[in-house]
Amino acid sequence: MNVKIKWLRNKLNLLDMQGMIVSNPVNIYYLTGISMETEGTLLITRKENIYITDSRYIESVNRVLTIDDEIIVYNVKDVSKDDYENFFMFCENVGFEEAYVTYAKYKEYMHMYKINNLVETENLLENQRMVKDEEEIECIKKACKITDDCFEHLCNFIKKGMTEKQIAMEIEQYFKMNGAEGTSFDSIVASGPNSSMPHAVPTERKIEAGDPITIDFGCTYKGYCSDMTRTIFMEYVPEEIKPIYNLVLKNQNQTLDEMKEGANARILTMMVESDFKIHGYTLDHSLGHGLGLEIHESPTIGRKDYLLKDNMTVTDEPGIYIPGKFGVRIEDTVQITKNGCIKLTNSDKNYIILK
Amino acid sequence: MNVKIKWLRNKLNLLDMQGMIVSNPVNIYYLTGISMETEGTLLITRKENIYITDSRYIESVNRVLTIDDEIIVYNVKDVSKDDYENFFMFCENVGFEEAYVTYAKYKEYMHMYKINNLVETENLLENQRMVKDEEEIECIKKACKITDDCFEHLCNFIKKGMTEKQIAMEIEQYFKMNGAEGTSFDSIVASGPNSSMPHAVPTERKIEAGDPITIDFGCTYKGYCSDMTRTIFMEYVPEEIKPIYNLVLKNQNQTLDEMKEGANARILTMMVESDFKIHGYTLDHSLGHGLGLEIHESPTIGRKDYLLKDNMTVTDEPGIYIPGKFGVRIEDTVQITKNGCIKLTNSDKNYIILK
Repeated sequence: MNVKIKWLRNKLNLLDMQGMIVSNPVNIYYLTGISMETEGTLLITRKENIYITDSRYIESVNRVLTIDDEIIVYNVKDVSKDDYENFFMFCENVGFEEAYVTYAKYKEYMHMYKINNLVETENLLENQRMVKDEEEIECIKKACKITDDCFEHLCNFIKKGMTEKQIAMEIEQYFKMNGAEGTSFDSIVASGPNSSMPHAVPTERKIEAGDPITIDFGCTYKGYCSDMTRTIFMEYVPEEIKPIYNLVLKNQNQTLDEMKEGANARILTMMVESDFKIHGYTLDHSLGHGLGLEIHESPTIGRKDYLLKDNMTVTDEPGIYIPGKFGVRIEDTVQITKNGCIKLTNSDKNYIILK
Repeated sequence: MNVKIKWLRNKLNLLDMQGMIVSNPVNIYYLTGISMETEGTLLITRKENIYITDSRYIESVNRVLTIDDEIIVYNVKDVSKDDYENFFMFCENVGFEEAYVTYAKYKEYMHMYKINNLVETENLLENQRMVKDEEEIECIKKACKITDDCFEHLCNFIKKGMTEKQIAMEIEQYFKMNGAEGTSFDSIVASGPNSSMPHAVPTERKIEAGDPITIDFGCTYKGYCSDMTRTIFMEYVPEEIKPIYNLVLKNQNQTLDEMKEGANARILTMMVESDFKIHGYTLDHSLGHGLGLEIHESPTIGRKDYLLKDNMTVTDEPGIYIPGKFGVRIEDTVQITKNGCIKLTNSDKNYIILK
């Protein structure tokens, strides 16, 4: 049996669950490699692993699975009412994903499978996904490398007079043409005063001389995400932005220095907050977040206590925003290790001035 | 108060519900115009309409809402435990969206709002959204017009040797540069043998002479979707495809002739199925589906009884697929009326042969 499913079975055993219904396609991909676009349900029963899907997907699912996975694939149209009732027969407690399954689906499961106790699994799989194995780290590294390369390309591509939208489209195109599946989230390209909005959507605004341009972007490789932000400049760096840029960069680097196994997310955040405060600014969003198969995963690096663990992958992304004027954010994706962190995105963070 | 919320209040009243928690951002956009990217919750309480969001969105939400909407906007950080408990005080039954809200969220609502009965609303809003008002139809028309224009552009753009991916990217770029927000779903560009898969994903395959190219695509305008498919040809139409193309087109047109208020989705489907069967083929997917703020909405035009209504917007998309060889699908978006249907996509359906 594949190691991830074996792990899950042990874990369920410890929790006194005799089975689980896995519905979230991200978790199914994590456990089996079945594409996240596939519609289907994974059943971990007492003795078997069963994947139920429909005729549209049977062929591609069978291509992905190996004998070693020990997963039996069913076409939903061949599964009878009795089959559903038999899957979890003699199971006292069966887990489900309460944070993914809708209330309507929960009731449908209760009705179809006739389970005694359908019990919450409290993000069992999401929590396991926080710590990445070697293969997962390799995918994230690859996504980060494509992102670095894209950034280098952008530094040559972006010209005065181009619109934010044009730059965002170039990012998307670059990723698709250079080995990534696509963007890991809608790219942010925010120029001039637009850069003061942390979640700006690319507009028709044209890049002007003296503009800061905040580019927050990433791609996916085999489903795994990268995430990087740089604030760069057209023709020159306005004097008023320099102290803020330097303050953000200093804190971004100091956080990198502190990130390692056992570091507390709350303390990391407080350190940045207090340094910003001394200079008259505030940290208006989280300092960072986990990422992997999803662009935002646990843990959040924010105001709550959380101790980082070896082989988590997280972002470090402080920012300062002056409403109506400008903003600066600098972000890297990193891998936490026992002794520190390894930067997975490596683009230059000194002033980048486009000509 | 805005008419859609007024409608909802009347409806809740009839159902003996004294309030509702609206969580699905598509339904919130439908009711209020608040962007679907905004994170927040709409509360319909006995006396007030309340929208709770966070500091990231307050400004943009206030820009969208007018006094006429009669919606009070709260910053989530200013809402106390008592406030939550007071919102639905004296309400016996409060509705929620059981097909959108997760089981975990359902429990959180129960706990936070201290509601006596949190009751299922059985797709109340989704069902209302099936029938479009004038303003909505105008948006869908506009999305369809941009799609037609894009198709005309593609017929000049596509050249032998181009890859499916390149064509898919051109579609995306065209939409973003020509007034649409973007694609309404991942475009399908399936050439040669790939066209035999109804849900093909664009590949690096290069277009060759004699290829059928099935392009299934659409955009959104003010959130409203279009959806169109054409199967076109590079340099010539292979003889073996012609009878199948003609059969699909005949059935697509006959369905258009039959689509009007009162037409039964099951009968429409059976008519196509039986004509396909006479010729030795099968209809492997639904004949069509509703669309609006989402690309797939109710009703499904399939094997279940469903009577179409005036001002529904649906697709008509029969297809025939010969595994490993080729496929043909032709699809339009239409508006149902009392006396027939109005085609909203109007691109040519005769053989289109690219040079």
